[in-house]
Amino acid sequence: MLTSFIKFGDGRTSTETDNATLAAALRDPKAVFWLDISQPTDEEYGVLDDVFGFHPLAIEDVIRDMQRPKIESYNHVGDSCQQGYFYMVIHGPDLETFKDHELRTKELDMFVSERYLVTIHEKQMKTIDHVMGRARSDPHRALDQGIDMLLHSILDKLVDYYEPILEYLGDALDELEDQAAECPTTDVLTRISAKKRELLNLRRIIGPQREVIAQLTRGEVPFIRQETRVYLRDVLDHLNRAVESLELFRDLVQGARDIYMSSISNSLNQIMKTLTIFSVIALPMTVITGFFGMNFDAIPGLHSPTGFWIAVMVMLGIVIGMLFLFRQRKWI
Amino acid sequence: MLTSFIKFGDGRTSTETDNATLAAALRDPKAVFWLDISQPTDEEYGVLDDVFGFHPLAIEDVIRDMQRPKIESYNHVGDSCQQGYFYMVIHGPDLETFKDHELRTKELDMFVSERYLVTIHEKQMKTIDHVMGRARSDPHRALDQGIDMLLHSILDKLVDYYEPILEYLGDALDELEDQAAECPTTDVLTRISAKKRELLNLRRIIGPQREVIAQLTRGEVPFIRQETRVYLRDVLDHLNRAVESLELFRDLVQGARDIYMSSISNSLNQIMKTLTIFSVIALPMTVITGFFGMNFDAIPGLHSPTGFWIAVMVMLGIVIGMLFLFRQRKWI
Amino acid sequence: MLTSFIKFGDGRTSTETDNATLAAALRDPKAVFWLDISQPTDEEYGVLDDVFGFHPLAIEDVIRDMQRPKIESYNHVGDSCQQGYFYMVIHGPDLETFKDHELRTKELDMFVSERYLVTIHEKQMKTIDHVMGRARSDPHRALDQGIDMLLHSILDKLVDYYEPILEYLGDALDELEDQAAECPTTDVLTRISAKKRELLNLRRIIGPQREVIAQLTRGEVPFIRQETRVYLRDVLDHLNRAVESLELFRDLVQGARDIYMSSISNSLNQIMKTLTIFSVIALPMTVITGFFGMNFDAIPGLHSPTGFWIAVMVMLGIVIGMLFLFRQRKWI
Amino acid sequence: MLTSFIKFGDGRTSTETDNATLAAALRDPKAVFWLDISQPTDEEYGVLDDVFGFHPLAIEDVIRDMQRPKIESYNHVGDSCQQGYFYMVIHGPDLETFKDHELRTKELDMFVSERYLVTIHEKQMKTIDHVMGRARSDPHRALDQGIDMLLHSILDKLVDYYEPILEYLGDALDELEDQAAECPTTDVLTRISAKKRELLNLRRIIGPQREVIAQLTRGEVPFIRQETRVYLRDVLDHLNRAVESLELFRDLVQGARDIYMSSISNSLNQIMKTLTIFSVIALPMTVITGFFGMNFDAIPGLHSPTGFWIAVMVMLGIVIGMLFLFRQRKWI
Amino acid sequence: MLTSFIKFGDGRTSTETDNATLAAALRDPKAVFWLDISQPTDEEYGVLDDVFGFHPLAIEDVIRDMQRPKIESYNHVGDSCQQGYFYMVIHGPDLETFKDHELRTKELDMFVSERYLVTIHEKQMKTIDHVMGRARSDPHRALDQGIDMLLHSILDKLVDYYEPILEYLGDALDELEDQAAECPTTDVLTRISAKKRELLNLRRIIGPQREVIAQLTRGEVPFIRQETRVYLRDVLDHLNRAVESLELFRDLVQGARDIYMSSISNSLNQIMKTLTIFSVIALPMTVITGFFGMNFDAIPGLHSPTGFWIAVMVMLGIVIGMLFLFRQRKWI
Repeated sequence: MLTSFIKFGDGRTSTETDNATLAAALRDPKAVFWLDISQPTDEEYGVLDDVFGFHPLAIEDVIRDMQRPKIESYNHVGDSCQQGYFYMVIHGPDLETFKDHELRTKELDMFVSERYLVTIHEKQMKTIDHVMGRARSDPHRALDQGIDMLLHSILDKLVDYYEPILEYLGDALDELEDQAAECPTTDVLTRISAKKRELLNLRRIIGPQREVIAQLTRGEVPFIRQETRVYLRDVLDHLNRAVESLELFRDLVQGARDIYMSSISNSLNQIMKTLTIFSVIALPMTVITGFFGMNFDAIPGLHSPTGFWIAVMVMLGIVIGMLFLFRQRKWI
Repeated sequence: MLTSFIKFGDGRTSTETDNATLAAALRDPKAVFWLDISQPTDEEYGVLDDVFGFHPLAIEDVIRDMQRPKIESYNHVGDSCQQGYFYMVIHGPDLETFKDHELRTKELDMFVSERYLVTIHEKQMKTIDHVMGRARSDPHRALDQGIDMLLHSILDKLVDYYEPILEYLGDALDELEDQAAECPTTDVLTRISAKKRELLNLRRIIGPQREVIAQLTRGEVPFIRQETRVYLRDVLDHLNRAVESLELFRDLVQGARDIYMSSISNSLNQIMKTLTIFSVIALPMTVITGFFGMNFDAIPGLHSPTGFWIAVMVMLGIVIGMLFLFRQRKWI
Repeated sequence: MLTSFIKFGDGRTSTETDNATLAAALRDPKAVFWLDISQPTDEEYGVLDDVFGFHPLAIEDVIRDMQRPKIESYNHVGDSCQQGYFYMVIHGPDLETFKDHELRTKELDMFVSERYLVTIHEKQMKTIDHVMGRARSDPHRALDQGIDMLLHSILDKLVDYYEPILEYLGDALDELEDQAAECPTTDVLTRISAKKRELLNLRRIIGPQREVIAQLTRGEVPFIRQETRVYLRDVLDHLNRAVESLELFRDLVQGARDIYMSSISNSLNQIMKTLTIFSVIALPMTVITGFFGMNFDAIPGLHSPTGFWIAVMVMLGIVIGMLFLFRQRKWI
Repeated sequence: MLTSFIKFGDGRTSTETDNATLAAALRDPKAVFWLDISQPTDEEYGVLDDVFGFHPLAIEDVIRDMQRPKIESYNHVGDSCQQGYFYMVIHGPDLETFKDHELRTKELDMFVSERYLVTIHEKQMKTIDHVMGRARSDPHRALDQGIDMLLHSILDKLVDYYEPILEYLGDALDELEDQAAECPTTDVLTRISAKKRELLNLRRIIGPQREVIAQLTRGEVPFIRQETRVYLRDVLDHLNRAVESLELFRDLVQGARDIYMSSISNSLNQIMKTLTIFSVIALPMTVITGFFGMNFDAIPGLHSPTGFWIAVMVMLGIVIGMLFLFRQRKWI
Repeated sequence: MLTSFIKFGDGRTSTETDNATLAAALRDPKAVFWLDISQPTDEEYGVLDDVFGFHPLAIEDVIRDMQRPKIESYNHVGDSCQQGYFYMVIHGPDLETFKDHELRTKELDMFVSERYLVTIHEKQMKTIDHVMGRARSDPHRALDQGIDMLLHSILDKLVDYYEPILEYLGDALDELEDQAAECPTTDVLTRISAKKRELLNLRRIIGPQREVIAQLTRGEVPFIRQETRVYLRDVLDHLNRAVESLELFRDLVQGARDIYMSSISNSLNQIMKTLTIFSVIALPMTVITGFFGMNFDAIPGLHSPTGFWIAVMVMLGIVIGMLFLFRQRKWI
């Protein structure tokens, strides 16, 4: 589905999305516009080539899934418009997948130049819906701020959505640590391992993403104004914090593993203590009862009550002595 | 609560904190002043915008909690005063949280230019109280030294507070190592893990903090004079030492974990030795007593005292032989 | 076997591979051509020296096996043609070895200059077959695009072959992780170790390969045109993704090892629990039966049925009590 | 205690240490001198300020203990002498602490300029004694070589003292490794851990020390002549070797830990083997003796000698069979 | 022993090694020569100072053992010959030590300038023997190629000797891995640890060596011609491959350790399984035999054959049931 916000050089605004209007906006050197392409059909992808004439490699990247975050500069070929454009890939968290405890990200492709912003996304994105809502209520203001500020508001919103997810991840790791301490089953380790993979995936996205935003703030993209860069620096700050959190989480994952391994060992120790206590008490008694169970005629005391009671006392003495010993070693 | 120390160009000093006085100080190109905003109300936050006209992003950062240490340069917009200002975030240790064995840091936000220093902190800070005390006793001297020396005295004090905390952390780790060796319960591991997290948090603060101070010493901030930089280099030295201590502590944490794991293993070995010693002595005796406990008529020696005493001697021999063997293997 | 696609300056094309034709093409300053040398005999290697006069070290590297991916610049010595050439080594996955679960790579040596591309490979390569097929169907077009685009189409194809292999490796690791959890034999660890070595080998190839392609995109090779670099950037992107996947796989290998170790420990715990449960139930009963098996005359209750049944009840009580205890500790 | 070697511009030499003489030497633009301050009293510290007027921060660092090795450049303020001076902190090993198996370092503070060298140390230092001895025997030569060569001879000597210590550390680690293999008590691990901490401490000193010397060799200190730098490069070489040794030792420590852990596991295996061998032999015999110890009338063979001897043969057969099995599994 | 190959400016060649001849060669601005000093006596070391006047620090390094690979530039002092010389230290593998499974390296010291090469080695070196053999057969050619090509042929040969050693190391590690899997004794771990140390030592040599060769190829040494650098790049390539192999070996060592640890654990599991199987089968039978061994009059069935056979069936049932259970759990 295509959505557009166009402001022509003569002040007219339009939300038409047919090729003719878009081409007109592109030709008008004073027009600024935002075109959003959501869950595009093959036909709608055609706009990128037919109207804008973007580089085939960039269009290929748009269509193919799961690009790494990146920013690439292109020049319009054979075009009166001398200035080039940038192709950006940015990812936001995919909250749908999040519920299934296997966090993935959603890809947002963007073509951005001084006069236009084209956003393409295969899944619906809350970020875009939000910014579009504001643009719809006041299209003039949205476009008058400049394309760079429009870009900022999208990036800002998109990065904001990482925060609750990171918080949730932190909580999940704390919980896993507790479980590892209390109930160390292989299943817990598998879940720790899965969480680690989720973290690694997230880091693989956020790392290059940070680099992309950093490039924007460093002024490598000419049409991003000095005053907008201050705002982008703020977005970068958020991503930096996100990366730091991920680093911390990585250590938490490692910590959870250690605690898991340790509680397995502790549990083994507990089991062995139980076995040892029982064995060490029972074995001498078995020897004594065996001794007096032998069929020798000559075993002393078999026929006197004293002998019996002495044997009983010795057995009790062993039990008490052993318990005392174990208590001393803090085994019980 | 606002506190101010103003010295106007004509030599007058003032500690008024109303907007009019502050605006007058700001306009007077020869005035220097320090404004401290402690545990501010929403109204008091307003001063930042109304009087100083700081950048909205910077003000937002001031209000939001837990920023990473950073330094950002801004320009006054639409102001006769051409020179820009810097927004800094620095953290000091929060001694309150320290008592609960979960060290956090306190944030100190600063706006600093050639002529003024604005400090904002949501919690009371000993550092500020200390410097303010000295300033109160002699406001002239405090401001005559220049804003950069005032900044230095705050940073110096703030960094000083890290020292006792690091010392305490070192002691706590030594203690944990001892406990891990003596009494390896999962609880000890959990505490080791918590200490590690505390260290990681501290490092996440001190690392960028060092970078901020390094920027000050490198002369990237124009109004910090050459002679002040020598003093800031000293502050940087303190932070470098702190970072080194944290590195060392990290290794101590790892060492404590190793000792913990090893003492669990040793304890298991101890338990198993006990079990084995008892079993290995008792089992042959059980076999012998069982042997003579069989109801065969044909067992030799059952009816002679010699047979019995021979059996007893054999059993004693086994006990002594086994004890000798264990002694040889250094098990007992 | 030699295959050539030559387009002379006067528009003639040729697929002759004799030295005379090649030398003529080399002399003609407007000719462009591609010479492929597949599974070369010693004689065919001679072309490199006799016709092209490539540097002896480069030719030595071509003949010797298993070079690291690299790109080296050489100058033609004593030649009217002033411009130099580049010697490149690139590896593609060797799908044959892949079936034996021991992935190796195939080496593709290339000499490339503005006017010619010489490819040499000791094994048949699908990549070359594919590009050659297209060239055969339309030799004009293949050469008119320029040598740099020809180079790109080979590199692009070659890099594409890594994708399914990485996917397969990922699946293999997932499977190993499952096996480590279910059936932790030393054999599984050996296979994890082998997979790790495979990954390391692959990384040792792809790492420098990425560097080689990056050099091409950075414009360090003069005859690669600006518009071709955009395409090579795309190849580089693929390699970057491959490296990232390898990084992830490395963590998966580590995770599989952890799970393996943990399931060995768990299995030990399971064994010890079984032993302990049986021992702890049987030992007290052995003591009791031993007690009443002693040959003392004075043991009370031996001659009354009540005594017997009391003994039986006590034994049953012990069994039930122990089972209850184990249940409580979640051992059974 | 102050010691001085002064050579005035007119060729006179002096070893006076009163303030007047030192001030005269400082004023004389052709005088060169070395002042050593050993185990200084508070008064003697005063010289640094009163006579030389060194920067208060540098003096503070001198007085405070345990600075990191560093080199800082200062300018004389308000002094006819235009040229600045450098403040260096260097550490030598403290051989006293070494005996207690807890290696620490001794701090040597130095102020160095083109014309003078001031060395300050709180503990007696062999290095200084050695160089001073040579200077005492021929003060002219010591000072005529230039301050930079004097500095070199001190640094060279100081670095030399690290060599035997590193050798000793290597030996100690080898010994620990042997102990870990033979007698793995927690005490060994604690000592390994202590050795590791010693290494870390040493590295924290030598690392920055190397950086300081490197700065001297790179010509960042103006009055160090080209020909002296060659000699300092030699000192740097020694430190590089020391750092490499420390790296190696770090791996040795890790190796010792691994061997320790492994020999604990092996010892557990040994214990369990013993237990298992005895149990597995004794248990079937216990069952057999128990079987014939039952009071059933109907047990066959109880009343015939054949039955008894068959039972004995079976028991012997079990013992021999088991021993054979254990031998096969290489358990005994 | 001294060996020389001199070619004077007038075309004469000489192999004299007396000081006069060497000094003459040194003075003749068109002479080129190679002087090899093998297993030198103290007197022979004297040549370095007496004839060449090399820097005392360099000579000291030559005499002292075990320098790190390095290259240092020196200038001839007080010499009509304006051009300086370089002092290089390079190591080749010492194949003698290799047989004792404790690989060390042999040091080759070199002084090299535009006109001469002086090689000094305390042990006989195959590399030198080889190059010398070729030089002896045709001294003109050896020297006419230039000193840089002579240097290359020595370095090339020396680096070649690493290849078989690395191959052997790889095989040794594979073997250790197998042993760790089959027979995990502490001795195997000690050997793994020794191999690791060998690797670390080798890497400490090859790492800086690579840096030295890289410096030669980068043109930092003026008299190494452009065309020679291509050849040195080839030597560098070999060293790069060696470093990569060492990296891989490091992972193999780690892998061998993991497998070792795992097979200890597996062996423990095996032992415990044996113990548990026997115990769990024997214990219930002991209880039953004990039960019917009690001296109660009232035990039912003691006097009837049926009772006996029921008891026997129960015992057999337990054995079969347990075996079935163990089979199900895949323990047997």
